[in-house]
Amino acid sequence: MNVGFAQTALDRADHIRADRDALARLMTPAARLLSLDGLDPVIALEGGLEWRSLGEADPQSELLFLGLDGERGCFAEVPRDLKGSMAPAGPKLWRTMSQLGPTDLATYGGARSLVDWHARHRFCAVCGQPTRLAKGGWQRTCTSEECGAEHFPRVDPVTIMLVEHEGDMLLGRQPRFPPQSYSALAGFVEPGESLEGAVARETMEEAGLKVRDISYVISQPWPFPSSLMVGCHAYADDPTITIDETELEDARWFSRGDVVDALDAVQHGEAGRAFRAPPAHAVAHTLLRWWVDRD
Amino acid sequence: MNVGFAQTALDRADHIRADRDALARLMTPAARLLSLDGLDPVIALEGGLEWRSLGEADPQSELLFLGLDGERGCFAEVPRDLKGSMAPAGPKLWRTMSQLGPTDLATYGGARSLVDWHARHRFCAVCGQPTRLAKGGWQRTCTSEECGAEHFPRVDPVTIMLVEHEGDMLLGRQPRFPPQSYSALAGFVEPGESLEGAVARETMEEAGLKVRDISYVISQPWPFPSSLMVGCHAYADDPTITIDETELEDARWFSRGDVVDALDAVQHGEAGRAFRAPPAHAVAHTLLRWWVDRD
Repeated sequence: MNVGFAQTALDRADHIRADRDALARLMTPAARLLSLDGLDPVIALEGGLEWRSLGEADPQSELLFLGLDGERGCFAEVPRDLKGSMAPAGPKLWRTMSQLGPTDLATYGGARSLVDWHARHRFCAVCGQPTRLAKGGWQRTCTSEECGAEHFPRVDPVTIMLVEHEGDMLLGRQPRFPPQSYSALAGFVEPGESLEGAVARETMEEAGLKVRDISYVISQPWPFPSSLMVGCHAYADDPTITIDETELEDARWFSRGDVVDALDAVQHGEAGRAFRAPPAHAVAHTLLRWWVDRD
Repeated sequence: MNVGFAQTALDRADHIRADRDALARLMTPAARLLSLDGLDPVIALEGGLEWRSLGEADPQSELLFLGLDGERGCFAEVPRDLKGSMAPAGPKLWRTMSQLGPTDLATYGGARSLVDWHARHRFCAVCGQPTRLAKGGWQRTCTSEECGAEHFPRVDPVTIMLVEHEGDMLLGRQPRFPPQSYSALAGFVEPGESLEGAVARETMEEAGLKVRDISYVISQPWPFPSSLMVGCHAYADDPTITIDETELEDARWFSRGDVVDALDAVQHGEAGRAFRAPPAHAVAHTLLRWWVDRD
């Protein structure tokens, strides 16, 4: 399956991150610096992500090592005044991202998550003192000698689930969704839960449905700000939906024909007869396509 | 499969967390307070986890809501002077945990992760000001009116992989492991990665092996301090191992017979002929048992 945000062409080159000399050797004017507009991507005149020379980085910025493109180091900067964002992606960002190919989208997503994490973790959660970037941007370290706590970028696992009943598919809508839009239910995995436990709990909480035979389908990163979407499938025997009105505005069963129609309409930027399906980069879109193609 | 740390008997009762009145109504002397020795479990005289009355909580402690046991609220406390820990579980903790049944183990694991997270997040990573517990312990909020950032408990996805070549199984050992111990390779999922991407990268980094046909097997929480272990299986065509000596002391291929023998020996607290298998609560143990039983 063609998974969004996951097909980076960069070599993460983990062995270089902790090697100050190797990192320093990469930081030449030949190294590439990813252009960002705040946290949003910048499209080059010739299309694709815009890269500048590392020499153009603001000396006040922290620099993070995204990985290697062949022999060349690729970096992103964390401007001193950058505020991070935990907001979902809006329509303007979606339009920009739709201009990016799969590898550019993955490179952008990984960089966005990391830059945002740095911008929102300038202080130590243990002691409140300032932190500084370490290991090429894959760590922050408390500057207090007494504390010295090490902090690592967050990746927040989220289950997103296709729940099926007699060939129909459960989809719901949050109040913030565009008109007619429905998507798969989803929720953060909590401490002390397995993925399967989170699927069962979230489906019960949000739609009042008991599920069985939970299976894993696919995963993809989702950089708003740092989710790992874990797509699952499950069956419900009793179709009686009771929605959690603090989370959802509606949830209902759609036929396979409705889902096929809505997915096909996405290519033309349109809603289907019954609902508007999630955009192509969303894991819910990939999951629904997997479901309609599976039999 | 019988997954460790995942079979809690408590109802997480998400709808109560944000409802101050409902939470207050639960905080009676009939409510239960989990006994902890620092972050370690306390075994009751009659066996199982020790619970006290909520009335015995230190007034200086922050209280977090673990969930409902029937109608009764279950809580844990975050003592003011508690330091968290990112250390792996040591032999003494393992021995204590081996006295707990599956539901107690899950309740303890979830509570430990959450208590530890609070102890290590008393300050706001965005602005450095103190945070306070919110939503029954499922959030911390910055006390600075200007900032007010909301912080959520971490769950760190980790891939752990059974890599197979012509019926043999790849296992490695870290220098910190007990003598003769080998386990499945594992590593944190990074921002911008899918689960499958993390499996492929970690196996290449740690053992120099290229894998194909990665599949999901099972997941379980691992509260040292807050991992979600995601167990996968993959095949390697070329068995030539090149270990990353900063991570591993050794990695080698074991026959199915060696694995069966080592798993059976765990029940007697012993090493097998070829190696010592991971303890029963570890996801690597469950994975290996799945592998030897699958055909």
